[in-house]
Amino acid sequence: MDQVTGADFLQLDPAGVPAGGLATWLTGALREAVADGRLAVGARVPASRTLAGQLGVSRGVVVEAYQRLTDEGLLSARSGGGTRVSAAPEAVRRLGAATRLPTPDLDLSPGVPDLSAFPRAAWAKASREVLAEIGSADLGYGDPRGVPALREALAVWLGRTRGITVSPDEILVVNGVAQGLVLLARSLEERGRTTVGFEEPGSYGVRVHLQKWGMTTAAVPVDADGLDVAALDALGVDAVVVTPAHQFPTGVVLSPQRRRELVEWVRAEPHRLVIEDDYDAEHRYDRPPVSAVKALAPDRVAHLGSVSKTLAPAMRIGWLIAPPGMQEELVEARYWLDLATPALPQITLARMLTSGAFERHLRLVRQRHRARRDALLEALAEHLPAARVHGVAAGLHVLVTLPDGIDDTAVATAALEAGIAVHPLTRHRQDDGPPGLVIGYAATTPDRLREAVRRLAPLIS
Amino acid sequence: MDQVTGADFLQLDPAGVPAGGLATWLTGALREAVADGRLAVGARVPASRTLAGQLGVSRGVVVEAYQRLTDEGLLSARSGGGTRVSAAPEAVRRLGAATRLPTPDLDLSPGVPDLSAFPRAAWAKASREVLAEIGSADLGYGDPRGVPALREALAVWLGRTRGITVSPDEILVVNGVAQGLVLLARSLEERGRTTVGFEEPGSYGVRVHLQKWGMTTAAVPVDADGLDVAALDALGVDAVVVTPAHQFPTGVVLSPQRRRELVEWVRAEPHRLVIEDDYDAEHRYDRPPVSAVKALAPDRVAHLGSVSKTLAPAMRIGWLIAPPGMQEELVEARYWLDLATPALPQITLARMLTSGAFERHLRLVRQRHRARRDALLEALAEHLPAARVHGVAAGLHVLVTLPDGIDDTAVATAALEAGIAVHPLTRHRQDDGPPGLVIGYAATTPDRLREAVRRLAPLIS
Repeated sequence: MDQVTGADFLQLDPAGVPAGGLATWLTGALREAVADGRLAVGARVPASRTLAGQLGVSRGVVVEAYQRLTDEGLLSARSGGGTRVSAAPEAVRRLGAATRLPTPDLDLSPGVPDLSAFPRAAWAKASREVLAEIGSADLGYGDPRGVPALREALAVWLGRTRGITVSPDEILVVNGVAQGLVLLARSLEERGRTTVGFEEPGSYGVRVHLQKWGMTTAAVPVDADGLDVAALDALGVDAVVVTPAHQFPTGVVLSPQRRRELVEWVRAEPHRLVIEDDYDAEHRYDRPPVSAVKALAPDRVAHLGSVSKTLAPAMRIGWLIAPPGMQEELVEARYWLDLATPALPQITLARMLTSGAFERHLRLVRQRHRARRDALLEALAEHLPAARVHGVAAGLHVLVTLPDGIDDTAVATAALEAGIAVHPLTRHRQDDGPPGLVIGYAATTPDRLREAVRRLAPLIS
Repeated sequence: MDQVTGADFLQLDPAGVPAGGLATWLTGALREAVADGRLAVGARVPASRTLAGQLGVSRGVVVEAYQRLTDEGLLSARSGGGTRVSAAPEAVRRLGAATRLPTPDLDLSPGVPDLSAFPRAAWAKASREVLAEIGSADLGYGDPRGVPALREALAVWLGRTRGITVSPDEILVVNGVAQGLVLLARSLEERGRTTVGFEEPGSYGVRVHLQKWGMTTAAVPVDADGLDVAALDALGVDAVVVTPAHQFPTGVVLSPQRRRELVEWVRAEPHRLVIEDDYDAEHRYDRPPVSAVKALAPDRVAHLGSVSKTLAPAMRIGWLIAPPGMQEELVEARYWLDLATPALPQITLARMLTSGAFERHLRLVRQRHRARRDALLEALAEHLPAARVHGVAAGLHVLVTLPDGIDDTAVATAALEAGIAVHPLTRHRQDDGPPGLVIGYAATTPDRLREAVRRLAPLIS
């Protein structure tokens, strides 16, 4: 098991692969090698420097490929033992947590809110009140759709903030968007529809999750108006995953015209489905609220949301509002996953929603996130004046596009080695495209953001 | 869609089916009819009285079959609309919650602890302390294995109470035993092992859950010493699901001799696996503690436990301790189900375990459960002197076996119509066998238990 596998054994040949696509190519090649047994579980992969030398590519390409496969759970690093092929527990931890890569002291990975702002006192108060008031029946095997109190509070909240008219009975409480994706992927698979349209660029984590549950993702380009619906139509798929409120990672808002086109697309054939990932819609700063696409075509959109970006990812509370015809099978499938979401946190969240405590928290974090964003933008303007910054009006991250020819994977690797975690845009692409960096700002203080940009700037050349 | 389907259309013929097996036969026949399209989704099934008349069986047989299919999600009842073929949300609710069957005012279904004893003050106190003390990092995307504090506390607890020597790193926190079963079923399926030995009688709910995830369950008889290991060996399967601490539903403890045989069986072939469902092991009254089978063969047993029977099912916190070789793939699979179990309840439970609050609660409920069990036994002795009562020394339920010739399904149906929910033993069988009733006592006060038995006794003839 201690044999180290080299590029010659794997017969890897990067000739003909364009420079910007090398990490994607290598990731796929290694994934195939694991799948067909050339790389056995337990086998050590070459040190990134060694493999880069053998292949004649930059070390950043290998590091990025290893990192992606680590995120997928195919590789893992043991202290002292090198990186191995494994479905190791370490493999599924977040970036940097358990790999041989340096642990960042400045983690600007996108997707995490200001966790230090978690409303601890309000949550503790609501918990105490809930524990004093609920009946014993609330502690039994509950409704797989979620506790009625939360579904009622969410129906009001989503009506007010997302324009979604929904009855509490149509809401399925899930353990975060991740579980909602599993339910939708299984439902599509049962209908024999295993290809879904997917934004390009689009969330790497969501894409891998769908692939883990048997889906093939077909790239649909995103431009300044959001998803290119004409390109989607040309693909001939029946389902598409979109982030209309604040596209990940570009930050673009799906334009009114494109919304209309998307609704026309989904209505054109009876089996079409739009999966709306409303992941960070509550965070907007300089623009009017945009309603959910679900509000425009409630009978054809499966809407996913969660409190991961408003309270904390560790809550694992989300919601799935499917078209009426899918709801019953999804509830049943959810039951056979794990019966139901834990009841006490659901009832506590319901109380936070109805008491106004949730909204007060949201106003607070909006202010904090806005100040952090402003600090990041100022620092970028000062230290990286040539950078083009996108998607600043909302969300928890920005996209910085870089001049063509810069290898964003190499930049992100160098940044990580300097203690700063950002995502190369390449990670969130299926195909080749211009380089960029995805920078999360919500979880980092203004001072630390300024320091991160100061240290990041010299690495971009 | 309003057509009502009759027995003639379904070509059901109960001739030759033994009386004790009628409900099982009818359940299977209706399931097949749904599967092959004779009963379309949306179609109404005949009223139980009508179908019973057409088939020449007791109404209880039809009610039981409908109830089982409702539990499975294949049938559901709409108010005013009859029972229909559907994967309705109502279908997956607990017994009686959403069917045309009467709602019991005395629910003696097994499997629920005394929910009124939930340690609300202790939980609120632990929650408040946890919220004051944790770091922000605990609120992020966490370790898919569970928070380290809970795994550490569980390792100590399981060592002390179940004799299991385990490192915190080997514990996988799951959303209850249900999610653990999904992980194990998928793991077995990936190895091409889709048949598992299953106790006969054995938990209907666990059996259906395994079947939902592609498993076929092969019946292994249970006698006074527990699982018949010789019969298991003769089956030629590689995996078996057992409840050694307190067999469900008979209440038998797996004898020392059978434990040795089971360990020999699992060690005889490299791919064999024992799945130990330790569902109510913490509840024992008149007998010494029995260690887990996991303690005897840690490398070959997947051990499942939860707080559903000690705190409340609504907590959805359980643990899966797999053989070392399976752990990594299970952690990865769990990550792709829903990333992780919510963190705050985990950390709160850890605090309850380390502070002694959990153990104090357990001592309290043991006293309460014991008093309830004693009240039930006294009432059974008084009102049903001929009844044989089994499995009284531990757990949350007893099994009452009835004289041959009594139709336990009909008795349970009559009881339900009289407002009393108990399970017919037939529901927990795959094959024919002597009749009985499974009576849960933990969730009902002594007075109400006595009343239930008083009302139940005249129905058993």
